[in-house]
Amino acid sequence: MARELRVGLIGCGQHALMYLLPALHYSPIHLVSVCDTNAERRQRVKRQFGAEADFEGIGAMLRGPQLDAVIACGPPDLHRAAAIAAMDAGLNVFVEKPPANDLAGALQIAEAARANDRHCMVGFMKRFALRYQQAREIAQSRSFGKTTHVSIKYAHWNCPDLRWMLVFMTIHVVDLMRFFAGELKRITFERGEAAGQYTFAIQAVAHSGTLLSLVTSSQEPRVKEHCEITGEGEVVIVRNVIELEYHRRVSPTRLFTSDLHDVQLLRPDFAIPNPEQNTLFLQGYAGEIQEFANACLENRAPSVTIDDGVQAMRLVELLAGNKSGTFELTE
Amino acid sequence: MARELRVGLIGCGQHALMYLLPALHYSPIHLVSVCDTNAERRQRVKRQFGAEADFEGIGAMLRGPQLDAVIACGPPDLHRAAAIAAMDAGLNVFVEKPPANDLAGALQIAEAARANDRHCMVGFMKRFALRYQQAREIAQSRSFGKTTHVSIKYAHWNCPDLRWMLVFMTIHVVDLMRFFAGELKRITFERGEAAGQYTFAIQAVAHSGTLLSLVTSSQEPRVKEHCEITGEGEVVIVRNVIELEYHRRVSPTRLFTSDLHDVQLLRPDFAIPNPEQNTLFLQGYAGEIQEFANACLENRAPSVTIDDGVQAMRLVELLAGNKSGTFELTE
Amino acid sequence: MARELRVGLIGCGQHALMYLLPALHYSPIHLVSVCDTNAERRQRVKRQFGAEADFEGIGAMLRGPQLDAVIACGPPDLHRAAAIAAMDAGLNVFVEKPPANDLAGALQIAEAARANDRHCMVGFMKRFALRYQQAREIAQSRSFGKTTHVSIKYAHWNCPDLRWMLVFMTIHVVDLMRFFAGELKRITFERGEAAGQYTFAIQAVAHSGTLLSLVTSSQEPRVKEHCEITGEGEVVIVRNVIELEYHRRVSPTRLFTSDLHDVQLLRPDFAIPNPEQNTLFLQGYAGEIQEFANACLENRAPSVTIDDGVQAMRLVELLAGNKSGTFELTE
Amino acid sequence: MARELRVGLIGCGQHALMYLLPALHYSPIHLVSVCDTNAERRQRVKRQFGAEADFEGIGAMLRGPQLDAVIACGPPDLHRAAAIAAMDAGLNVFVEKPPANDLAGALQIAEAARANDRHCMVGFMKRFALRYQQAREIAQSRSFGKTTHVSIKYAHWNCPDLRWMLVFMTIHVVDLMRFFAGELKRITFERGEAAGQYTFAIQAVAHSGTLLSLVTSSQEPRVKEHCEITGEGEVVIVRNVIELEYHRRVSPTRLFTSDLHDVQLLRPDFAIPNPEQNTLFLQGYAGEIQEFANACLENRAPSVTIDDGVQAMRLVELLAGNKSGTFELTE
Repeated sequence: MARELRVGLIGCGQHALMYLLPALHYSPIHLVSVCDTNAERRQRVKRQFGAEADFEGIGAMLRGPQLDAVIACGPPDLHRAAAIAAMDAGLNVFVEKPPANDLAGALQIAEAARANDRHCMVGFMKRFALRYQQAREIAQSRSFGKTTHVSIKYAHWNCPDLRWMLVFMTIHVVDLMRFFAGELKRITFERGEAAGQYTFAIQAVAHSGTLLSLVTSSQEPRVKEHCEITGEGEVVIVRNVIELEYHRRVSPTRLFTSDLHDVQLLRPDFAIPNPEQNTLFLQGYAGEIQEFANACLENRAPSVTIDDGVQAMRLVELLAGNKSGTFELTE
Repeated sequence: MARELRVGLIGCGQHALMYLLPALHYSPIHLVSVCDTNAERRQRVKRQFGAEADFEGIGAMLRGPQLDAVIACGPPDLHRAAAIAAMDAGLNVFVEKPPANDLAGALQIAEAARANDRHCMVGFMKRFALRYQQAREIAQSRSFGKTTHVSIKYAHWNCPDLRWMLVFMTIHVVDLMRFFAGELKRITFERGEAAGQYTFAIQAVAHSGTLLSLVTSSQEPRVKEHCEITGEGEVVIVRNVIELEYHRRVSPTRLFTSDLHDVQLLRPDFAIPNPEQNTLFLQGYAGEIQEFANACLENRAPSVTIDDGVQAMRLVELLAGNKSGTFELTE
Repeated sequence: MARELRVGLIGCGQHALMYLLPALHYSPIHLVSVCDTNAERRQRVKRQFGAEADFEGIGAMLRGPQLDAVIACGPPDLHRAAAIAAMDAGLNVFVEKPPANDLAGALQIAEAARANDRHCMVGFMKRFALRYQQAREIAQSRSFGKTTHVSIKYAHWNCPDLRWMLVFMTIHVVDLMRFFAGELKRITFERGEAAGQYTFAIQAVAHSGTLLSLVTSSQEPRVKEHCEITGEGEVVIVRNVIELEYHRRVSPTRLFTSDLHDVQLLRPDFAIPNPEQNTLFLQGYAGEIQEFANACLENRAPSVTIDDGVQAMRLVELLAGNKSGTFELTE
Repeated sequence: MARELRVGLIGCGQHALMYLLPALHYSPIHLVSVCDTNAERRQRVKRQFGAEADFEGIGAMLRGPQLDAVIACGPPDLHRAAAIAAMDAGLNVFVEKPPANDLAGALQIAEAARANDRHCMVGFMKRFALRYQQAREIAQSRSFGKTTHVSIKYAHWNCPDLRWMLVFMTIHVVDLMRFFAGELKRITFERGEAAGQYTFAIQAVAHSGTLLSLVTSSQEPRVKEHCEITGEGEVVIVRNVIELEYHRRVSPTRLFTSDLHDVQLLRPDFAIPNPEQNTLFLQGYAGEIQEFANACLENRAPSVTIDDGVQAMRLVELLAGNKSGTFELTE
């Protein structure tokens, strides 16, 4: 049997139960310990997912059966505390996003990673969503040309307050900007408010020259995510994380007719069970856990780390602290 | 803690691993025992899903830790053997479809159910697919009127042979005809063959008067499932199990204009994790397991039983044994 | 200036005004005369479309300024009368569908065409709809293989009575069956009725071996047309006459993954005016008029003639005269 | 017969032939004269659309048969010259967009309108596109709340140069911003360039408080137009001018389930000829000509005037003259 990563889970709530724990089954992971202050929750997870031991506290778990890595999923400050404790104990760690309550917390984790020479992966699962992976692959192909523009609209239901919206929702797409366009150089935004709900119109220029337009709003009744990446004469569109449409370059003399090769579609076949239509793969949960397991087993940094978490929190703080303006970003 | 059904699983292969076992977590089920001739497979499942014991044979499992019910998932004849053994041991049983290799096998299960006064549920998960449940609810609403027509097209990739196509693929939609229209009275079909692959054009009349048109083919490159239920002036459409469109009655004097209430849409919001877009719910795996658990705990027959399995196998035999013709069906 | 066909129009009602007359502008046609019993209608058309003369009666128009051909658009019996009169006068003629009230009328036209050695084109415009033309081209390509199945669902609002439904609506798709599959050999159907509205479940076998499934119903609130043509491992889908999806053959060993070449899409770009999204081209009006003009100017039979009209009316009579049954068709 | 507007057309090229002239038939308009420097073109239009007279020059046409109004469609400077000449001659005028080559030209027209007390309508046909009319109606309904955000992406094929892109393409959506959000207060944009093609990321704040995000690019292979208007808890989406989706407010406690009333769809029924799927109505050509005719007959200003043309040209100049920046707009 191939080597498996021995993992301890901190936080046995609904989110772990529905998304992270089922994703473990697609990865070379052995769930050894579970930890939660609520005994019923941790014992349920222990039994349903076959863990060997359960603990009330992080310290006890880290002193328990030997682990290679920790996965933490709970309130943001738990992520911070768990990540630091795990790395101080010499383990790699995966934390759900946001990595901490604020930028300061994220920086503490980054410091702990450096000090202990350990890796902290942050759960930006959208980077591992099947369609976004495919979109980026297309965007990096020769025929696509330079990425000239990235457009993201992410809208959703009402949020309790501005900070909640930013750290739990907006953070996803703030990270996607860097995923598709690289480091940002300048950002401009306008924030609107109506009845306690917020709208952000954001645009940015990346060091690569790519322009970005991002809209995020808590004024919509449903969660909707639309992403378009434009190259030079080509565009790839991802709708709601599941459907990808690729419009290929056409001859400049053929404006008004179309042929079969112009538009290509990737769409899951939901009428048959298979990984390509499994929500865990479509939304990226399976992929991020696989990346974490593989990176740990291969002794390398995962493709998303706390440094990405720090950059995302830096943008979150900017959006939280200003109503509008243009900001030059320095790394 | 609410009462849980103590379940033994027979068959620990890929399908159980990916679809039935994850669905257990949404039901009041305690996985007690697992059984598979392959030790590595059964031990993997035992560990990952926290079962108490594992067995190589069905008999041993039935003599092991006390069970309330059995779930069987493997080759068709295993379904038959497991169902009969479990019911003979006084347990209710859930079998994946097809319930057996042939009609004779299905009838043996039905006989065992009657003899032991136990229930055998057959895994026609499409009946529990979220959109089909919603479609049937709409079709039974007052404004919909009588169901005048049911149209199903189910097409997919090449199959090894005719019987394989019928028992593993066609059986799903053969069952859906009865789900949406009730018992069939007369069926007519034409079977086509090209390069060893088959096409069926099927139409039927139900006792209710509903007409049905069913097309199934193994000549398509992707699995595609399209279903339309027409009432009197209304229609509900389900595309690939995930998207539902409901066209409401309009005034007969308003043929050429449309208003906002005419067409309504149900579509999962894939950009946010939640049960309504979870593949297990969309495809019906979660729902069928919930129904089985609840029926057992409530001491009632589940909504789909081996009698439905027998009817489906009867139609399968008809399609397998004739090239074309019109057949009156008697119950 | 290229040679133009000198045309007289019989019937200046709404349908001619909105669909046939605008389509003339895309063809080498000179509208010379217009004819209608209603003076206001014919004079409005004469002025708006620049005809030279207007007439109350067919005979007068045929004796007026010299014509090469006649286009007739009105009640079905007008089509018959106008077609016969025009051909007796030595002119080719285009009639809107249905060509006549019944099969007998269509046969009279066919007889007049033979006797006068003139052509009568019937306005089965769907054959010229851009997407259906493209679908047929794909279906005739080498990679598509044999056409194994044709599936058409055409549903619409309530109709005044059965015959009205058949001659004004159903006739379109009855003709499409032959367009996509060639001559039919055997047809089976079931007719349902509820509250004075009708549903037909129809299946057929063509001489080519292609199976066909057709559903038509007047029990839906909107007009909906869905067509799928399956080959050997490929399928082409046309939705509502405007969107074409082509699913290409995949390797039989690649069932559960997809790549960019699997699905290709043709969809009009409605955000810019051009012929590919013009309703007249999408629905086939421009194409049928072009075909008529070109055939006349080239002294050849158009691709759709009264013989197709006769075949369509033969099927209409079969559907009108029987509630259900299987019928062998002889040419 | 109802009163008709006596109109002279200046410019008989392809665009007039395909879009404006067919739209006349849906309006109370009598085409009296046509004018074009090319004799073949003007005579073709004269004959096909039944005009009484044709002229080589504008002056001659204005001195010819009596007119109520003029429609001009040609190069931008022709619009300017024709508009001024027509209004100086006491006539109202409709000009295709752009109204002139530059802002100065548009201001000359505005001045001529004021001096002669005549109306110049500018052909911003998108304002009359059926779906945009419906979207605005929804956005003004009580349940929609305040318009919090307007998002428009308009992307298309390569353009000859920056100014061409701005005056022929971008101008459409620059005008739509004001149509949906009212007067703009502040605008920020970034312009990108790659291989001679341009991308604009634009955001704006309206006096009403509405935020706007606009993306326009000549780096795509197809013309694509996507528009979303967000209120307070509701959103209306228009795709490619033809499909409208309205997401209604849901209870804040119902985040993860959906019901039939949540999403409503307006989509043309292309399978049947009728005005709601006619390209001229979908794209707004019929509507703008109707508005012009009605406004002239009712002696009132049309709903879009040269003042809107001036505002649009002002934004065009801003986009042409700066690479990026934030600009306060004063009326």
